[in-house]
Amino acid sequence: MAVIECVPNISEGRRQEVLDACAAAVSRGGARLLDVKPDATHNRTVFTFAGSAAQVRASVLALFETALPLIDLRHHSGEHPRMGAIDVVPFIPIEGATMAECVTLAQDVAAEVSTRHQLPVFLYEEAARLPARRNLEDIRRGEFEGLAAKLAQPDWKPDFGPAHPHASAGATVVGARMPLVAYNINLATDRLEVAKRIAAAVRHSSGGLRYVKAMGIALADRGIVQVSMNLTNFEKTPIARVFELVKREAARDGVAVLESEIIGLVPSAALTQAAAWYLQIEGFNADQILEKKLHDN
Amino acid sequence: MAVIECVPNISEGRRQEVLDACAAAVSRGGARLLDVKPDATHNRTVFTFAGSAAQVRASVLALFETALPLIDLRHHSGEHPRMGAIDVVPFIPIEGATMAECVTLAQDVAAEVSTRHQLPVFLYEEAARLPARRNLEDIRRGEFEGLAAKLAQPDWKPDFGPAHPHASAGATVVGARMPLVAYNINLATDRLEVAKRIAAAVRHSSGGLRYVKAMGIALADRGIVQVSMNLTNFEKTPIARVFELVKREAARDGVAVLESEIIGLVPSAALTQAAAWYLQIEGFNADQILEKKLHDN
Repeated sequence: MAVIECVPNISEGRRQEVLDACAAAVSRGGARLLDVKPDATHNRTVFTFAGSAAQVRASVLALFETALPLIDLRHHSGEHPRMGAIDVVPFIPIEGATMAECVTLAQDVAAEVSTRHQLPVFLYEEAARLPARRNLEDIRRGEFEGLAAKLAQPDWKPDFGPAHPHASAGATVVGARMPLVAYNINLATDRLEVAKRIAAAVRHSSGGLRYVKAMGIALADRGIVQVSMNLTNFEKTPIARVFELVKREAARDGVAVLESEIIGLVPSAALTQAAAWYLQIEGFNADQILEKKLHDN
Repeated sequence: MAVIECVPNISEGRRQEVLDACAAAVSRGGARLLDVKPDATHNRTVFTFAGSAAQVRASVLALFETALPLIDLRHHSGEHPRMGAIDVVPFIPIEGATMAECVTLAQDVAAEVSTRHQLPVFLYEEAARLPARRNLEDIRRGEFEGLAAKLAQPDWKPDFGPAHPHASAGATVVGARMPLVAYNINLATDRLEVAKRIAAAVRHSSGGLRYVKAMGIALADRGIVQVSMNLTNFEKTPIARVFELVKREAARDGVAVLESEIIGLVPSAALTQAAAWYLQIEGFNADQILEKKLHDN
């Protein structure tokens, strides 16, 4: 079975009964709920679930049915930018699924929820129809409060649904993207400027690797600093290359790498790829992984 | 679901109809057949299947029912040593299964087939009850032709079943062991003595790492040499340590590592462990692997 992951972010991170209802809706749809991560400060929750395209579709439609009546953005505040009750819905290819299948699923779900709920929907990242809509931040700029004015601009007519906000639910951004790996490297120094310099050196926005977002932060309680990263496409910018580059840049400043850490879930391929690189394994094939063979159809 | 793998070796590698019948028996039992590897020269076939303890048990019992009437060791020849029609049956812990569960399963299957088929059965490796029976080679010495004399010795009374051979099927060795990783490292030289020296340096039998078997061989067609290894416990002797040691020993002789290769199936953990080592990932937990979380109960 080809497995697709879905990681919707909803604009509710405080009312447990709402989160419970949403989790139940996802499970009812047939996908497997892997994680629910609420953040009270952001007033936002990230759901992670996976399954076949049909299961994931049914689960995400059930989530819309359940969440939209329960979340009213007119009374929502939190630190995280948002423009919708269900703010963003990415589909992610995992085992045996392609990006093209995820794009098709995103289009299908976008069409369905825009019709059912009279909801404006934008397509983003790999599912974007316009280059200006690849970036989530660009679409979301202005947030819920600026949404009516934004939708009225010809450039910001939504991909599906009406050109005015849903009264309580705003608009939703649906798309397809690679799995994101949250990867941090801790340095054996308390010099924050070293972490900041290295973050600038490795991240895409300031001249670094194409699929790296990075910032340098202090871990004050441990007296060390960290290069905190999101790797947005581990196939094209592999973890091993990022690690080796950070290590080399740190050595330039006389600083050693203390350790690294992966936050949350990581696709198996991101790690087996790193093992194959370091061990110089030639012609390694994912079908050689016993568990993959066991679970494939 | 805890997954156990079973890798029986049977003394038939030529008659396709027998192999087909055996494969069908395994599938009927409920385990998932992952691989069938016949060798005509050895006149021997390795079956690989996996599933829950109950599925693997049913499949291996079905294999005995089917194979024993079809294979007669009195008319068997081949290059590989053997003492039984079903020669050796190892159970291997994979996902969420423990070695203790595999030992219990080995004992249970050994008792069952010895009674059903009047077959002498030895327990080996982790399931061995006597230190002298840990090693498969020690049990099998003398082969089918010497079996009657061996079983008559008090030291070689079988763990289950009669102290005389099954007329056509000899005896079977059943046990539990770690997954075996077939791992080769190719060196950028044609000097066979370098590969032989390194193999001797890293293998257990001549002073090297505890769970490494190794030999140096020439890959004549490519004009290079290879350190060909079996890693018999990748948890205790990790692949990364073996690779780094071979690389260091090769550098001592001015030789570079060209590449390495994994032959056949490898448990995911053997590779994620290597990735975590090289990337210095602190506190990595197998439950962070998305696919594992997806397939676990």
